[in-house]
Amino acid sequence: MSFNKISETKVFGGLHQRFTHQSTTTQCEMTFAIFLPPQATQQSVPVLYWLSGLTCTDENFMQKAGAFRKAAELGIAIVAPDTSPRGDAVPDDNDNAYDFGLGAGFYLNATQTPWKTHYQMYSYVVDELPDLIEAQFPVTNRKAISGHSMGGHGALTIGLKNQDKYQSISAFSPITNPTECPWGIKALSNYLGNDPALWQKYDACKLLAKHGCQLPILIDQGEADGFLEEQLKPNHLIDVAAQQQLDFELRMQAGYDHSYFFISSFIDDHLAFHAKHL
Amino acid sequence: MSFNKISETKVFGGLHQRFTHQSTTTQCEMTFAIFLPPQATQQSVPVLYWLSGLTCTDENFMQKAGAFRKAAELGIAIVAPDTSPRGDAVPDDNDNAYDFGLGAGFYLNATQTPWKTHYQMYSYVVDELPDLIEAQFPVTNRKAISGHSMGGHGALTIGLKNQDKYQSISAFSPITNPTECPWGIKALSNYLGNDPALWQKYDACKLLAKHGCQLPILIDQGEADGFLEEQLKPNHLIDVAAQQQLDFELRMQAGYDHSYFFISSFIDDHLAFHAKHL
Repeated sequence: MSFNKISETKVFGGLHQRFTHQSTTTQCEMTFAIFLPPQATQQSVPVLYWLSGLTCTDENFMQKAGAFRKAAELGIAIVAPDTSPRGDAVPDDNDNAYDFGLGAGFYLNATQTPWKTHYQMYSYVVDELPDLIEAQFPVTNRKAISGHSMGGHGALTIGLKNQDKYQSISAFSPITNPTECPWGIKALSNYLGNDPALWQKYDACKLLAKHGCQLPILIDQGEADGFLEEQLKPNHLIDVAAQQQLDFELRMQAGYDHSYFFISSFIDDHLAFHAKHL
Repeated sequence: MSFNKISETKVFGGLHQRFTHQSTTTQCEMTFAIFLPPQATQQSVPVLYWLSGLTCTDENFMQKAGAFRKAAELGIAIVAPDTSPRGDAVPDDNDNAYDFGLGAGFYLNATQTPWKTHYQMYSYVVDELPDLIEAQFPVTNRKAISGHSMGGHGALTIGLKNQDKYQSISAFSPITNPTECPWGIKALSNYLGNDPALWQKYDACKLLAKHGCQLPILIDQGEADGFLEEQLKPNHLIDVAAQQQLDFELRMQAGYDHSYFFISSFIDDHLAFHAKHL
């Protein structure tokens, strides 16, 4: 497995590194970033996987979330993959829309032409990337998963379907019910085809209702988020959660919007939450 | 004095706001950002002015430095101006180089045509902007100044020449001796003309040698900074400081580079340093 290191930067006594590698899952070159806390020079450390939102790359969280101070203190590595396959061979939305295609992989495995060749982000995040990380870096196999918006959808759905692989799940401003919002319906219908029954395995509300969850879940949602009612629908998830016995907390945060300023304000809480379980 | 608010975002219980206003000093529309800590809803708070480096705007520090957690805890506002005048009427480097013209105002008052009409960033930062801030926001007149690279040069030279106006000075990776480095010589000769005697009032080494400093100074410099030897020359400033009785600390930080990852790693120390004096 060969990696190409793009950059390495010291931060909070640890290292921020970016790599490219040829992915067998997405059949293109993928970029990811990793933060290794200072403890990783002495011992293997657990990993938080961070899934970013629409339009993002591996860089947004690493540059804007302000997560490294706390992650260095707690001894947690952070891995941030890209949000879709990339490259000239990878098809994009016909209108280059921000909410489908490049930068909008929705952490699923596409079944429809022309998307299915490269848009296999579910398997990339669940299987190929952790295998690579655990083979090549000083980390344990203890993992948590978190993300923002489309990446919050990714974290919830991946965590719920792989409760044996992760220790804890969190999200900021997640798309909780993609089968019932415009972003989700556009993505699911294009990537998976027009039968809504096939969309349910990528819908956190449906998955939680069907399977429950043995893992602890923490979600933060800003009340001033412009996408709250049309796209994110946290109340749908709260309704499902209320019907089950769960270790589940969804905090509505007054005045906060959808930006990384919001994420930075509460990322320490999420890191501390995951650290308890890692 | 009329401001146009571009955005307002809640962060760490405080507010990040961006404004434009018509500047009488630079004779163009200027953009600045302010962080108001939660305490500012109850009382007036002191202000840290942050001056960014080459190519930056008001946004880089606010998005990448991770400063708001500590600033909110300490009750310090942060104001970040742009790094140059902007707009179609403002002349730029003939080759659109990154190190002169737009994004590269060097915090001086230009005397040469065509620069002198708009490139008056020294007076903008020292006079017009604080007057505006103190008239329009819940702040005291207690001020500190800091910055990065070209902005570290700005913070040092402005602080040294206005020891009655500021309580403390800090810098990350500052251009300490612009009369003796390529970035500085290019900027000073173009903005001020070819007589090096006229450049000295914008050179931190020359100013410190001539005037000394009654204010505390804290500087952090990464040892892995690619600009260290050719452009930044911290040893020149250390040599001058050693000849005086100063409250001066310049910390060489092993392994750190010139990026905001470096700044984020030590910004809490700078905020705590300024808080002691504000």
